[in-house]
Amino acid sequence: MAEKDVRNKQLLLRHYVSGFPKESDMFVSSDSTIKLKLGDESKGVVLVKNLFLAADPHLRPLMQKDDKFSVSQSFTPGSPLYGFGVAKVLDSKHQDFQEGDYVWGVTGWEEYSIISSPENLFKIHHHTDVPLSYYTGILGMPGLTAYSGFFEVCGPKKGEYVFVSAAAGAVGQLVGQFAKLIGCYVVGSAGSKDKVDLLKSKFGFDEAFNYKEEHDLDAALKRYFPQGIDIYFELVGGKMLDAVLMNMRVHGRIAVCGMISQYTKEEHEGIKNTACLIYKRIRMQGFNVVDYYPLYPKFLEFLLPQIRNGEISCVEDIVGGLENGAAALVRVFNGHNIGKQVLSLMNDE
Amino acid sequence: MAEKDVRNKQLLLRHYVSGFPKESDMFVSSDSTIKLKLGDESKGVVLVKNLFLAADPHLRPLMQKDDKFSVSQSFTPGSPLYGFGVAKVLDSKHQDFQEGDYVWGVTGWEEYSIISSPENLFKIHHHTDVPLSYYTGILGMPGLTAYSGFFEVCGPKKGEYVFVSAAAGAVGQLVGQFAKLIGCYVVGSAGSKDKVDLLKSKFGFDEAFNYKEEHDLDAALKRYFPQGIDIYFELVGGKMLDAVLMNMRVHGRIAVCGMISQYTKEEHEGIKNTACLIYKRIRMQGFNVVDYYPLYPKFLEFLLPQIRNGEISCVEDIVGGLENGAAALVRVFNGHNIGKQVLSLMNDE
Ligand SMILES: NC(=O)c1ccc[n+]([C@@H]2O[C@H](COP(=O)([O-])OP(=O)(O)OC[C@H]3O[C@@H](n4cnc5c(N)ncnc54)[C@H](OP(=O)(O)O)[C@@H]3O)[C@@H](O)[C@H]2O)c1
Ligand SMILES: NC(=O)c1ccc[n+]([C@@H]2O[C@H](COP(=O)([O-])OP(=O)(O)OC[C@H]3O[C@@H](n4cnc5c(N)ncnc54)[C@H](OP(=O)(O)O)[C@@H]3O)[C@@H](O)[C@H]2O)c1
Repeated sequence: MAEKDVRNKQLLLRHYVSGFPKESDMFVSSDSTIKLKLGDESKGVVLVKNLFLAADPHLRPLMQKDDKFSVSQSFTPGSPLYGFGVAKVLDSKHQDFQEGDYVWGVTGWEEYSIISSPENLFKIHHHTDVPLSYYTGILGMPGLTAYSGFFEVCGPKKGEYVFVSAAAGAVGQLVGQFAKLIGCYVVGSAGSKDKVDLLKSKFGFDEAFNYKEEHDLDAALKRYFPQGIDIYFELVGGKMLDAVLMNMRVHGRIAVCGMISQYTKEEHEGIKNTACLIYKRIRMQGFNVVDYYPLYPKFLEFLLPQIRNGEISCVEDIVGGLENGAAALVRVFNGHNIGKQVLSLMNDE
Repeated sequence: MAEKDVRNKQLLLRHYVSGFPKESDMFVSSDSTIKLKLGDESKGVVLVKNLFLAADPHLRPLMQKDDKFSVSQSFTPGSPLYGFGVAKVLDSKHQDFQEGDYVWGVTGWEEYSIISSPENLFKIHHHTDVPLSYYTGILGMPGLTAYSGFFEVCGPKKGEYVFVSAAAGAVGQLVGQFAKLIGCYVVGSAGSKDKVDLLKSKFGFDEAFNYKEEHDLDAALKRYFPQGIDIYFELVGGKMLDAVLMNMRVHGRIAVCGMISQYTKEEHEGIKNTACLIYKRIRMQGFNVVDYYPLYPKFLEFLLPQIRNGEISCVEDIVGGLENGAAALVRVFNGHNIGKQVLSLMNDE
């Protein structure tokens, strides 16, 4: 008997976006169906049930027609979004995966996905003491980003002065904790009092400030770093980058990880203080976590014990159901998320 | 009998400068006198006769009251300029130097200088087949800048695509030749047809273009680098940097050496394409030649034979007499110099 088609609810892009993303830029549809068994023609392919989807900032650039900077293909209006997520394998025609495996990697914003390049999936050796959702954040792509960006790109040394922007977010909160772990002095910026408190009380940042309350970012940085900044972990871009450049120390390093403040702008703001790079001999280095995937096993080995013994922790912001997917994404750009913004599909029947 | 005072002609800063430097911003004075013998109180000091002075671009930032970026002390109105030069030791109270030695390093824009930190002077083991003036350029600070910036900062590999701005200048012409030497494809930009011809005919650049004739720098770079740029040797800043960022290849490197187009601006232009650093994983690194002084002997060992056998050459633009010093400096900013702009004091009686 042929396998029955089941509903496959999806979150689709309604139209190309400019400026801030709005909930109405996306819509949920239950029109799509899928067979929950792969046919013999599906060689090398994996069928998954999606459990958690990551509302990652990089989805916004993919929502516009031509992003001047991006090297990835934009989303297509009328098609579902895709991005990082955690999923359970329902059927597999790929030798590395079996029914029942848990995986993380790029999947669709939908109940079920057919993944045709499973080489880019990571198998989760499920540790029942660690929430599965962590593989969208601290144990997944953002975690590896913080780890490789901080340890590999920044080359940090004990006692150095570290500044992290968007510090309460998925990547930022981890960078700050890594920096404390090796004995750096760490200050973070974030967009609300609650986040600032969290940074200091939960994540052990030495100081933190609300950038929205500082009309003079240069003055704020001089207050927190009278001696200057050795390492800046860049997550926001724009005015903050310009202010940081003026406050770097000689031989400082800037890991350019993200520029979320610019993703919603028609034209990026101009950075006026790049001459600081010369006078202070600064290394400013962009990176992409995909180049560091080979480090993933080493990263897990380092991080899992620290999560278990409570030395490193994380905060997640979990919203449930594809109907709330668009709202979850919008939160990342208005800063309403505290910690990794996750969309859970666990209760989608 | 006490040593007689002799005239010490000087080029002095008249007032702080903003915008383009003008000849009238400086003036020559013969009011100063000096004794050509050091007294016993002058421990550790060296007295020199200046032979060649380098009209280096970095003198311009020192002519303004507060340069936002510079970490060096500005010149003082009413005092002589100082910068790199070649000189002959007339008297020495420092163990490392003797009367008759030739040296290069920081000295005054005047006939005679008393150098109180001779630790920063390099002794010239005078090779009579190489002009002494070369120690203001190819064999001096700009030469070491090109060498350390290209080999140490850029990490070039055979076959890579290299772009050099201000390519006909002291640093640029050498960077291009180094790049050809190791088998890179090299394109340079400069501000006149003569310079463009020089780059291709004398210095072996694969291509060169006049940036003043390109109203769309992005299009020009796409024409010369359809496959993109691996290495950019940055000497000018501003619009050129923005255009280059859009044309870098993945894992490209930018050595940020100078930004001469910005030195004469009240406020630096904003760079709008820094997001390219992330997507293309670019390393953009500022450097200062002073950090590479320990490489100087290795550099000489590498370069002297190549100069002698004609594999590497240079063009100098020598103007004579302190009266022409201000004009020589101005030329560097209107681009009238072709190659290293030198002021010779050899004929000053
Ligand atoms: N290079 C890579 O491989 C790589 C990998 C992962 C992530 N990233 C980048 O890293 C950055 C952080 O990602 P994440 O997952 O950790 O996100 P996140 O921090 O969890 O969420 C985004 C946060 O950014 C802040 N934000 C939003 N708009 C802002 C603005 N205009 N100015 C300043 N802050 C703003 C908000 O917090 P506030 O309340 O503080 O405003 C928001 O909570 C993003 O730029 C992302 O693109 C890069
Ligand atoms: N980081 C370090 O340690 C270090 C050491 C030495 C030098 N530098 C820097 O390296 C750069 C080059 O120095 P150099 O000694 O080799 O000087 P140079 O190239 O011999 O002379 C300066 C040249 O710059 C060009 N220029 C002037 N204004 C310009 C503008 N607005 N836009 C584009 N090009 C312009 C002119 O040539 P065109 O006809 O092509 O316009 C001029 O001939 C300078 O920025 C300098 O500050 C840095």
